[in-house]
Amino acid sequence: MSFQNPVFIPGPTNMPEAIRQACYMPTIDHRSPVFGRILHPCLDGVRRVLKSESAHIFIFPSTGTGGWETALTNTLSPGDTVLAARNGMFSHRWIDMCQRHGLTVQVIETPWGEGIPAGKMEEALRADKDRAIKVVLATHNETATGVKSDIAAVRRALDAAGHPAMLFVDGVSSIASMDFRFDEWGVDVAVTGSQKGFMLPAGLAIVGFSEKAMNAVETARLPRTFFDVRDMARGYANNAFPYTPPVGLMNGLKLSLQMIEDEGLENVFARHRRIATGVRRAVDAWGLELCAVSPDVQSDTVSAIRTPEGFNATDIVTVAARDYGMAFGVGLGEVAGKVFRIGHLGSLTDAMMLSGLGTAEMVMVDLGLPIKLGSGVAAAQDVYRRGGEARKAAA
Amino acid sequence: MSFQNPVFIPGPTNMPEAIRQACYMPTIDHRSPVFGRILHPCLDGVRRVLKSESAHIFIFPSTGTGGWETALTNTLSPGDTVLAARNGMFSHRWIDMCQRHGLTVQVIETPWGEGIPAGKMEEALRADKDRAIKVVLATHNETATGVKSDIAAVRRALDAAGHPAMLFVDGVSSIASMDFRFDEWGVDVAVTGSQKGFMLPAGLAIVGFSEKAMNAVETARLPRTFFDVRDMARGYANNAFPYTPPVGLMNGLKLSLQMIEDEGLENVFARHRRIATGVRRAVDAWGLELCAVSPDVQSDTVSAIRTPEGFNATDIVTVAARDYGMAFGVGLGEVAGKVFRIGHLGSLTDAMMLSGLGTAEMVMVDLGLPIKLGSGVAAAQDVYRRGGEARKAAA
Amino acid sequence: MSFQNPVFIPGPTNMPEAIRQACYMPTIDHRSPVFGRILHPCLDGVRRVLKSESAHIFIFPSTGTGGWETALTNTLSPGDTVLAARNGMFSHRWIDMCQRHGLTVQVIETPWGEGIPAGKMEEALRADKDRAIKVVLATHNETATGVKSDIAAVRRALDAAGHPAMLFVDGVSSIASMDFRFDEWGVDVAVTGSQKGFMLPAGLAIVGFSEKAMNAVETARLPRTFFDVRDMARGYANNAFPYTPPVGLMNGLKLSLQMIEDEGLENVFARHRRIATGVRRAVDAWGLELCAVSPDVQSDTVSAIRTPEGFNATDIVTVAARDYGMAFGVGLGEVAGKVFRIGHLGSLTDAMMLSGLGTAEMVMVDLGLPIKLGSGVAAAQDVYRRGGEARKAAA
Amino acid sequence: MSFQNPVFIPGPTNMPEAIRQACYMPTIDHRSPVFGRILHPCLDGVRRVLKSESAHIFIFPSTGTGGWETALTNTLSPGDTVLAARNGMFSHRWIDMCQRHGLTVQVIETPWGEGIPAGKMEEALRADKDRAIKVVLATHNETATGVKSDIAAVRRALDAAGHPAMLFVDGVSSIASMDFRFDEWGVDVAVTGSQKGFMLPAGLAIVGFSEKAMNAVETARLPRTFFDVRDMARGYANNAFPYTPPVGLMNGLKLSLQMIEDEGLENVFARHRRIATGVRRAVDAWGLELCAVSPDVQSDTVSAIRTPEGFNATDIVTVAARDYGMAFGVGLGEVAGKVFRIGHLGSLTDAMMLSGLGTAEMVMVDLGLPIKLGSGVAAAQDVYRRGGEARKAAA
Repeated sequence: MSFQNPVFIPGPTNMPEAIRQACYMPTIDHRSPVFGRILHPCLDGVRRVLKSESAHIFIFPSTGTGGWETALTNTLSPGDTVLAARNGMFSHRWIDMCQRHGLTVQVIETPWGEGIPAGKMEEALRADKDRAIKVVLATHNETATGVKSDIAAVRRALDAAGHPAMLFVDGVSSIASMDFRFDEWGVDVAVTGSQKGFMLPAGLAIVGFSEKAMNAVETARLPRTFFDVRDMARGYANNAFPYTPPVGLMNGLKLSLQMIEDEGLENVFARHRRIATGVRRAVDAWGLELCAVSPDVQSDTVSAIRTPEGFNATDIVTVAARDYGMAFGVGLGEVAGKVFRIGHLGSLTDAMMLSGLGTAEMVMVDLGLPIKLGSGVAAAQDVYRRGGEARKAAA
Repeated sequence: MSFQNPVFIPGPTNMPEAIRQACYMPTIDHRSPVFGRILHPCLDGVRRVLKSESAHIFIFPSTGTGGWETALTNTLSPGDTVLAARNGMFSHRWIDMCQRHGLTVQVIETPWGEGIPAGKMEEALRADKDRAIKVVLATHNETATGVKSDIAAVRRALDAAGHPAMLFVDGVSSIASMDFRFDEWGVDVAVTGSQKGFMLPAGLAIVGFSEKAMNAVETARLPRTFFDVRDMARGYANNAFPYTPPVGLMNGLKLSLQMIEDEGLENVFARHRRIATGVRRAVDAWGLELCAVSPDVQSDTVSAIRTPEGFNATDIVTVAARDYGMAFGVGLGEVAGKVFRIGHLGSLTDAMMLSGLGTAEMVMVDLGLPIKLGSGVAAAQDVYRRGGEARKAAA
Repeated sequence: MSFQNPVFIPGPTNMPEAIRQACYMPTIDHRSPVFGRILHPCLDGVRRVLKSESAHIFIFPSTGTGGWETALTNTLSPGDTVLAARNGMFSHRWIDMCQRHGLTVQVIETPWGEGIPAGKMEEALRADKDRAIKVVLATHNETATGVKSDIAAVRRALDAAGHPAMLFVDGVSSIASMDFRFDEWGVDVAVTGSQKGFMLPAGLAIVGFSEKAMNAVETARLPRTFFDVRDMARGYANNAFPYTPPVGLMNGLKLSLQMIEDEGLENVFARHRRIATGVRRAVDAWGLELCAVSPDVQSDTVSAIRTPEGFNATDIVTVAARDYGMAFGVGLGEVAGKVFRIGHLGSLTDAMMLSGLGTAEMVMVDLGLPIKLGSGVAAAQDVYRRGGEARKAAA
Repeated sequence: MSFQNPVFIPGPTNMPEAIRQACYMPTIDHRSPVFGRILHPCLDGVRRVLKSESAHIFIFPSTGTGGWETALTNTLSPGDTVLAARNGMFSHRWIDMCQRHGLTVQVIETPWGEGIPAGKMEEALRADKDRAIKVVLATHNETATGVKSDIAAVRRALDAAGHPAMLFVDGVSSIASMDFRFDEWGVDVAVTGSQKGFMLPAGLAIVGFSEKAMNAVETARLPRTFFDVRDMARGYANNAFPYTPPVGLMNGLKLSLQMIEDEGLENVFARHRRIATGVRRAVDAWGLELCAVSPDVQSDTVSAIRTPEGFNATDIVTVAARDYGMAFGVGLGEVAGKVFRIGHLGSLTDAMMLSGLGTAEMVMVDLGLPIKLGSGVAAAQDVYRRGGEARKAAA
């Protein structure tokens, strides 16, 4: 099909054309002062999006996975212990990375669909009498299940246990789309990427380090060069990078940050919440259920929708792509074939979302599911329309 | 709003990004052979879209209005008579242009919403004993009312009357979206523009002349230079233009023609018909009526929808733009305030159309019209979904 | 060759990529207020470039040739007399257009290479006792010969003769590149296009009308509809066009005007003068001569360079394109084969010009002309280099 | 300055606009089959550029530095020994990375400006009786000094010594611009990036692994996750990535490979050699010297040019940027302030190179160096012009 529909995968997101044009700027000399005028607005803007006064921001030509590795290798040493809940594919992968880097992971197994169990975390921290745990890993938004976790509660768990471990948060599919409070939550490392809330192509790992994390860098003994934040810090001080910077993507990030601030960060969050609320009402209208077990953990950026027993949820994704030229997300890991995912983050309007819901309905009817055409759309419209009570409540 | 929804005005249409990029190619030397490799594929491709073997195709840096002027000034002399039906704003404007150029127009007044009355045309032609009428003007698709006319019937009227007048057809909002048969219908001049079925920016007048029309050029005495097809013909023979050609737009047209042929011309028509059918079902579901008085004249490229007495249809367009960032078309002339228009031509998918219908519903509900949210979308989905009987019938 | 060198044709010029991106904006509703925010900055900016307080600016989807037709058909009636000097291909074509529109042209034949003979014009105007001459046509910059004329002198000729004729100036290849003073010179209609000093694709005719010209519109009887400035004026008053406007090109024009004003209009002129001076020094160094007969008529936007007797100047253009992927301009009309042209207007830097001069040298040496490699480049460098005395003098 | 001159830094290079547009394609679903149609042509095309039948190609969202880390961490274990010559900034950095990853590096210190001393390498290998050396590192083209090394000679040294160490080659600034023979030279890991010969933005690390290197992956104990080639290999087998792939850059790489193959790989090399030859003749004409000590080590992608004692070479770069809007490369490390660099790789024409040489001349004259304007340009023209003997010899 020669015509581009919006995509509804949970990232990379739809990208504003102006951002793409900013990304594909002609070559400049990255050793000239021009680069500094791209670099510093990026660092400052990301810090504001994180709601931090003083986080050290680093941007790598990489992805969120590289951001995870940056967090670990700059702060930890072989054999160190980390504590993490596993409640989805992405928390699983970060845990796996720890193990492959020679770290000991104390895993709190958590059903997929639930958020991080702060209570169990507190228990584990209290039990760690000799303070072996150096870091608590928390996935703010599990992209695989559409589940957000309460990071403030994790912080409270640490504080209640009086435990000095650092708090590392994966905000890949939350930052710039959902409220994130680096300073207030006492986050030590936040990790995100370019291809979600920032509405850019994949290709940047974006991390924020607290002073405490920066101090840990000095003693950490895991090897790193490409991801070494000390080289980055030295480079930034000279408007430079330790290697060739991804100038175009960063120029796009600079514009993205401007667009986000022009819209207003809280308005961006409200738009995501409103669009997500519409999707959730549609799921209700279809008689289906979210993977997320309760309203308090429902993500505003991605919804993982359970299909009936015996139905292969992946067929929805396949048929949507083949027959309607539209992309949804498949289920991953434990929920492969059991859920399909609708991404609703980044550059998205209410009207675009209606086209996604309307197409999902057609596909489900084509596949024999007992869905009423228009039912989910109508439920979402009730949220999206300007006069709607639901919209007011949602916003 | 920083995010671009599709537009649903009846032209300029949504444009594929690849076409826009082709349009704004870097500068080339238009006097070099490179230009010929853009020019001739355009001429040949347009001829195929017109379903003509031998029409002389001319492309001007202008618009459809310039195409009308090209048709008239190259074939007629001051005081000549033309016959035309007035059934909408665009037929009205072509008539007005004739009068401003010193032609005598025999007007068949026709209610807006109806097609060209071929019977009355035949009567008028039969009554023209001394063959004063040199040209019959016919607007294939009245963009103002969403009404298509039966050009084959106009041809039959000419033939039945045995009248030698030429047949000039305005196909601005039909060509490349709806079936057009230059040779079979005995068209002498066909006029279109770049910004409708060809999915380009406005800026090109595209016309086809029959041999009979070319012969008329030699004796026509209306002054013209910019629009003189003889200069164009001489230029084309040398891979050139009589003045600076719109190289970029023509490069875009070349790509557009390729995309149309890749999709298949008949498939393009079927897609427009299917999308239009969905819109018409939605209008039914809303309990509203089209301006077009009967199914046989309903346009596949634009629907003009009557709103209830006392309601200002233009409010729908205003609110859609202001509150939802979406563009629909206002009513023009006689039907201003009485209809709003949904354009559904050019680069458009079923999913995009659902977003337009869904948004129109929200706006109408916001404005207090007794529309059920989701009702029109559901009716269209029933046409668009792959398994749908309606879709099969429509296609 | 897959890599794009700059072009050195005398228009269309090299275009800044940002302008091309502005041109290929996605579709907007041209009947919405958004369009007014493109239209009015264009009208105001063009007026400032013309150095006029009150000129009525009109922008047509057309070319400079359409601008000529706009000038004539809106102000004159069949049989009216115009006075014009013919000193190149473009003055010739405007005269030809007059004749094809039924006007009587009193032609002052002038050798190609010379400017408009203001003295002869004054004589002709004085001799026109019954004031038959309605308009004096003046080509500010003859693109075919690289000759600029003294429009102030033409104005003085009119004033000295006490003649009420209007003064129409073709500024297609001068406006926005060379100083143009609509008000000071008492211009009644100025004509230009998008593809020269404005650094845009071809596709816009841009004209300015004085009050006197606007008054003439009311009585002019040449037929026009597409080019009727009254329809335009009515449209503009409502943020609209009488037909579909070329929104993208106008959005590009808006940006172009911003870029020109950011650089500073006088700086733009100085840059053109400096680059042109370098080209002229190069021509001297090569031992060749300009078509322009004396320094006072040498154009700052295009140089037509005479080649030795017996040498086909067009070969330079052919070989440059074929062997070096670079475009220069051929000679036209009387000087076809006798000159080749270097365009040096629009989006151009000193460094780009060096690549053009260096390539021209290679081509001329390849073709056996007794040129010393590097000689012209060196002469231009002496003008372009920052410390150069010549540069200071030129600027 | 609002107009973009070509850049003459030694990467990122000038990029064809078509490649940039390919890079910033709209979002697709990277888990759909569409991605496979981008991925596999990239892998296959890179393998052909490397002149390998069977190398395992891996592409990371990273840079050449990440490619180095990929090479080391996938094949080596803490404490392993590598052998390397240090003859410039980039060989230095790779050595530094080894040390930071806990490897022992046996360094052959080599004067900057010389190539890898294959004889000394052979000695070192022969002396390594117990085969402690696991890997020989070789920088094919030292970007800091403009020095290419003879990789075939390094291979002969290994063979002559009968040493089983693997051969890792940094081809960042050679691959796709200069001849590289993975199979013939017995390379085990080749490393490059997107932003040099491939004419793309920075953002991809591109590596090729031999079977021998792949076997080493199984036993290597340096930690890695992001750069683990096993995860990549598993992903590729399913048309996927282990994390979000840089789809746009890979789409650009696919086009780049097509453009390279359309031009012909050997023609690409010949073009680089010809342009480089012109630059070297210009340097001669200026009376300056290259950092590269002898013709056999002169790079075809970058020239580092020594300036006279007491002159700060960096001033050339500063003034060129400030006064002429043109980017050259500064000297790095040992030769900072002693050389400036002209990059001449990637998307470059002879004409573009003339503008770089002409501008460099103006800057040097401005700064008081005893350079004759036009002298270097003339010397290069003699190489570049089609009829030139020098050109024939160079090509």
